[in-house]
Amino acid sequence: MSRFWSRLTHDLRPYVPGEQPHMAELVKLNTNESPFGPSPRVLEAIRAEAAETLRLYPDPQATALRAALAAYHRVRLEQVFVGNGSDEVLAHAFAALLKHDAPLLFPDITYSFYPVYCRLFDIAYEAVPLDEALQIRVADYRRPAGAIIVPNPNAPTGLALSRGAIATLLEEHPDAPVVIDEAYVDFGAETAIPLVESHPNLLVVHTMSKSRALAGLRVGYAIGDRDLIEALTRVKDSFNSYPLGRPAQAGAIASLEDEAYFQQSCARVIEGRERLSRGLVRLGFEVLPSSANFVFVRHPAHEGAALAAALRQQAVIVRHFSAPRISDYLRITVGTDGQIDRLLSAVSDILGSGPTTPS
Amino acid sequence: MSRFWSRLTHDLRPYVPGEQPHMAELVKLNTNESPFGPSPRVLEAIRAEAAETLRLYPDPQATALRAALAAYHRVRLEQVFVGNGSDEVLAHAFAALLKHDAPLLFPDITYSFYPVYCRLFDIAYEAVPLDEALQIRVADYRRPAGAIIVPNPNAPTGLALSRGAIATLLEEHPDAPVVIDEAYVDFGAETAIPLVESHPNLLVVHTMSKSRALAGLRVGYAIGDRDLIEALTRVKDSFNSYPLGRPAQAGAIASLEDEAYFQQSCARVIEGRERLSRGLVRLGFEVLPSSANFVFVRHPAHEGAALAAALRQQAVIVRHFSAPRISDYLRITVGTDGQIDRLLSAVSDILGSGPTTPS
Repeated sequence: MSRFWSRLTHDLRPYVPGEQPHMAELVKLNTNESPFGPSPRVLEAIRAEAAETLRLYPDPQATALRAALAAYHRVRLEQVFVGNGSDEVLAHAFAALLKHDAPLLFPDITYSFYPVYCRLFDIAYEAVPLDEALQIRVADYRRPAGAIIVPNPNAPTGLALSRGAIATLLEEHPDAPVVIDEAYVDFGAETAIPLVESHPNLLVVHTMSKSRALAGLRVGYAIGDRDLIEALTRVKDSFNSYPLGRPAQAGAIASLEDEAYFQQSCARVIEGRERLSRGLVRLGFEVLPSSANFVFVRHPAHEGAALAAALRQQAVIVRHFSAPRISDYLRITVGTDGQIDRLLSAVSDILGSGPTTPS
Repeated sequence: MSRFWSRLTHDLRPYVPGEQPHMAELVKLNTNESPFGPSPRVLEAIRAEAAETLRLYPDPQATALRAALAAYHRVRLEQVFVGNGSDEVLAHAFAALLKHDAPLLFPDITYSFYPVYCRLFDIAYEAVPLDEALQIRVADYRRPAGAIIVPNPNAPTGLALSRGAIATLLEEHPDAPVVIDEAYVDFGAETAIPLVESHPNLLVVHTMSKSRALAGLRVGYAIGDRDLIEALTRVKDSFNSYPLGRPAQAGAIASLEDEAYFQQSCARVIEGRERLSRGLVRLGFEVLPSSANFVFVRHPAHEGAALAAALRQQAVIVRHFSAPRISDYLRITVGTDGQIDRLLSAVSDILGSGPTTPS
């Protein structure tokens, strides 16, 4: 607290990201990073940017990257917006599109940054409860809405809606902007991007941090009707003209150019997820059917917080949320085969139901 | 205009950055970039980040970079904030510190992003006129102020205040946060950073885009009392947890480690500025005494807009502002010796007062 702060600063409740600990031999399964590195072409492209040209500002419109994204997703250049990670894209979307007289709607259990943005931008919102199976039910959104934001698949549950369900949501709210946050869509859910052409109220947000293994580079983007993209651009150009540096723009373009690597990485993560899920089921866990690169699980006999703490003792970091309805659960990122084995072995050890590993 | 836009989006007047044209053989003197590349150590550090570890999020607190900045500027870690270019740092400062009931004060002729931020964050402001010599006069700020922001040296004039004048400003407004935007300070002005220790209302903002030749990497920072830094951090953590990617953090640290290169680059720019100034004076220009990496000049017989357009015909790009009081002026970035020669030759050609160069 300080007399120099704006009133807003006093009122904020900042987001707390998953920790980035510096421990040797850590099995880090807490922030949904890819277990595999980015495409070698990305690394080459970034190396090529380590040059005298860094003295020059990057393209503030990131036209080459946006053109590559437009070609990749079969939309037009003016339907693409890029930002400094999808969090920045989301922040601009909250400011530019999601603040109206009627409340913004989003699930009660979802990405915990959404209420933080609402406080930052003074946006009235209502949290719509997930059903008993922790699913989003589109019918529950039939209420006055200034705007809607829904992750698909949802986080931290990993549960996905079909494209048909998203279309229903869009059609039931033709006058409200609807943001579908597809941070995890590449791991098995259906993208809503094909609906952009016929639904002027749809904005789809993607990140390169997960399926493209570029969390360290900070690139996110949005696809939507040109009017929605123009709104994001107006806010961005009132905030920071050049959010993406030269290495980020070049690396992101190179990632899009290596489709085979991308597809293979996603397939390997999905395989790992299924193996991790089977292993956890064998250990007595309830595992929600995930379409993401993580699983959301609980054990009937063990509290989530206690399990997370015990895993940490074994240098395995997973994420636990102390929020209502989900405090029994753990969110576990899909790691490499070796990391999955370490996790399963550590859990087995903790539960006392299997072979004890030397620690 | 769209029914999906938040009210804010309709009201914005976005900043227009200097263009980044794609012309061959262009002499680009319009956005105050360094004519020299960054330190070779920066390039090495970025290459080293082109690795599998890009799959991992960067340190959200950028602790290593902030520690390097703290050591460099002889302050404490908690007195340092970093952001995605100084524009993002400034944006967070406007939101976190500069919105109060009394108006924000800044010069009438200054960085044209300031009023853009005020509109974005709904901040009441008053523009305080520069004096007849286009100087900031501290005495003119003796009026009710919720906060103050002043660039030193000012842009686009290049004119600097002494540290003593800044101290007076701080002491005349002990209850108002005062931001000194030192984007260009390394080219010959006195930094206010030594005043941080004794002035809890002072925030000093720096960029690595100019004197460190890293416009393409996007790194800016602020130094100030820990309460002011906490305010910036609260807003940042409500907006985007990871604004600086791994290449940006590593490159910025490496730049700080090559002090000799940095000092030499600044000295060369200052030499170039003096040569450019002398050349322009010889051609009949009035040249304001610059402490920046650009000069602000006017010719008694030639309009600024016309001169800028004529230079463009010769593939030399400078910046012209059509704002009141300065529409006769051109802002010309200090280039390499070769670029300075091209500029002087082109101007000479245009004025018809010297040897005509083949075009």
